[in-house]
Amino acid sequence: MATEDVDPRFADLDAWPLASAMEAMWEGQLAAIAAIGHALPAITAATEAAKTALGDHGRLVYVGAGTSGRVAVQDGAELTPTFAWPRERVRFIVAGGDSAFVTSIEGAEDDIDDAVAQINAARLTPHDVVIAVAASGTTPFTVAALQQAGSCGAVTVGVANNPGTVLLASAKFPILIETGRELIAGSTRMKAGTAQKVVLNLISSGIMLRLGRVYRGMMVNMQPTNAKLKRRAEAMVAQIAERDPLHAARALEQAEGNVKTAVLLALGVSRAEAETILKDGDGNLRRVFAELARDRG
Amino acid sequence: MATEDVDPRFADLDAWPLASAMEAMWEGQLAAIAAIGHALPAITAATEAAKTALGDHGRLVYVGAGTSGRVAVQDGAELTPTFAWPRERVRFIVAGGDSAFVTSIEGAEDDIDDAVAQINAARLTPHDVVIAVAASGTTPFTVAALQQAGSCGAVTVGVANNPGTVLLASAKFPILIETGRELIAGSTRMKAGTAQKVVLNLISSGIMLRLGRVYRGMMVNMQPTNAKLKRRAEAMVAQIAERDPLHAARALEQAEGNVKTAVLLALGVSRAEAETILKDGDGNLRRVFAELARDRG
Repeated sequence: MATEDVDPRFADLDAWPLASAMEAMWEGQLAAIAAIGHALPAITAATEAAKTALGDHGRLVYVGAGTSGRVAVQDGAELTPTFAWPRERVRFIVAGGDSAFVTSIEGAEDDIDDAVAQINAARLTPHDVVIAVAASGTTPFTVAALQQAGSCGAVTVGVANNPGTVLLASAKFPILIETGRELIAGSTRMKAGTAQKVVLNLISSGIMLRLGRVYRGMMVNMQPTNAKLKRRAEAMVAQIAERDPLHAARALEQAEGNVKTAVLLALGVSRAEAETILKDGDGNLRRVFAELARDRG
Repeated sequence: MATEDVDPRFADLDAWPLASAMEAMWEGQLAAIAAIGHALPAITAATEAAKTALGDHGRLVYVGAGTSGRVAVQDGAELTPTFAWPRERVRFIVAGGDSAFVTSIEGAEDDIDDAVAQINAARLTPHDVVIAVAASGTTPFTVAALQQAGSCGAVTVGVANNPGTVLLASAKFPILIETGRELIAGSTRMKAGTAQKVVLNLISSGIMLRLGRVYRGMMVNMQPTNAKLKRRAEAMVAQIAERDPLHAARALEQAEGNVKTAVLLALGVSRAEAETILKDGDGNLRRVFAELARDRG
């Protein structure tokens, strides 16, 4: 199994000057990202299928153990603050449960019964998308969870860093990222972990792009829950509506922090009308503007 | 602030075919890793200083909010399972506290008082190393924590993705990774987040390399807490001691899972003697083998 093998090139890594070791580890990271290139078609296909399955109520379910579990949680936890993805539409199924985020739980990744129980408790449907991540591709918890999810009819995406492994064979959408040997054998938090993070970011960002939660490079669904995000939201409203910052800030306040509504308010649409228009346009600003242009044209 | 700016190149990202958007996002990730190249000397200097300060009892303290906080926790949580870094020697100071790992806490990243209180509760000394991470370089929680840690005498490392920012100005070891504009403005989980993960991996792996916790590319301090790790530990003992797998497995069992002790047992050293030799050699197998060769030579 490549991710577990010792690479003879780096047998003396611990004896090298630190600057040389750093350079070698950095180059390994570049190679890990480069390895994703081959998988872009598979990543795109999984993302399209996920977007279609999710509809208005489906959930994104992330599965993993150890490092892979933490990478998965990291990706899923961002979706609510950055894209306003409803909290109840993301779920984490992690070996050892919530406490495993901070401390590692002995033996949890071998616990098949727990995997099946956690999947059953989630009551999956064909609208749910399960993304299971394991560097080895063989982690018993993760494989069992993905297989059980598949038998519940959920869309299954498997992300692994070793070819020919059971996680990939069991997934409807297998994504293999061949990051190869780690500079420190088995330290899959390094190359494999970086590649996993990037693949999950691509999938979830791609889903949000396709769902209209990004407009002209801006996260128009984000929630201004702190000072920085409030400034960001005001800047978006100002830029999209082509209004001055003060006008934009006032519109955002009237819209109670909803950027898309605020854009329409700043353009002189009434609040009630704005909400109807957005609902008709499925929250997609490109569609809404096309509609408005037609009405006024 | 570059990480918040809209990049005109990607204004139509949401209207592009998904495969094109994926390619663009992937190239952005490559660029993010490439940007780390400039910072390798700063990363190396911070790592050397951290290793020296830590000694036998110092702690690694990770600080962050939101995405950056999760990236920081991810790195620190790996150290115990992969390098047997003592659990009490890693600490997390995260905006919003432990619950922020999975869900985002409104306004937590602006809470300066909480940052100072959490740092004070940690009772830092000059042996402690504080690594504070913020994509913007201006997050109030993170800046306040780093400054307070500095005034307690701790070694401070600041990692940020925007130049000329207060986090970098306040850190003894500033590490700037200029990842520039995100493809989706302000979505710093993407390029900035990947770069942060890699930088933290380099620093902590570098520290462990310099502390003798890696030998010939193998994590000789790891703890075999599950089936995969037990197989990995047995393979290490077999390879280092040049013994057959069965012999190695028996030695590992006798050594109660300690790889370094098992290697010496497999080589015919008694358990008591093995423990003395390892203690004298500061747990560094290169030093231990040099010593053994001298004794027998």
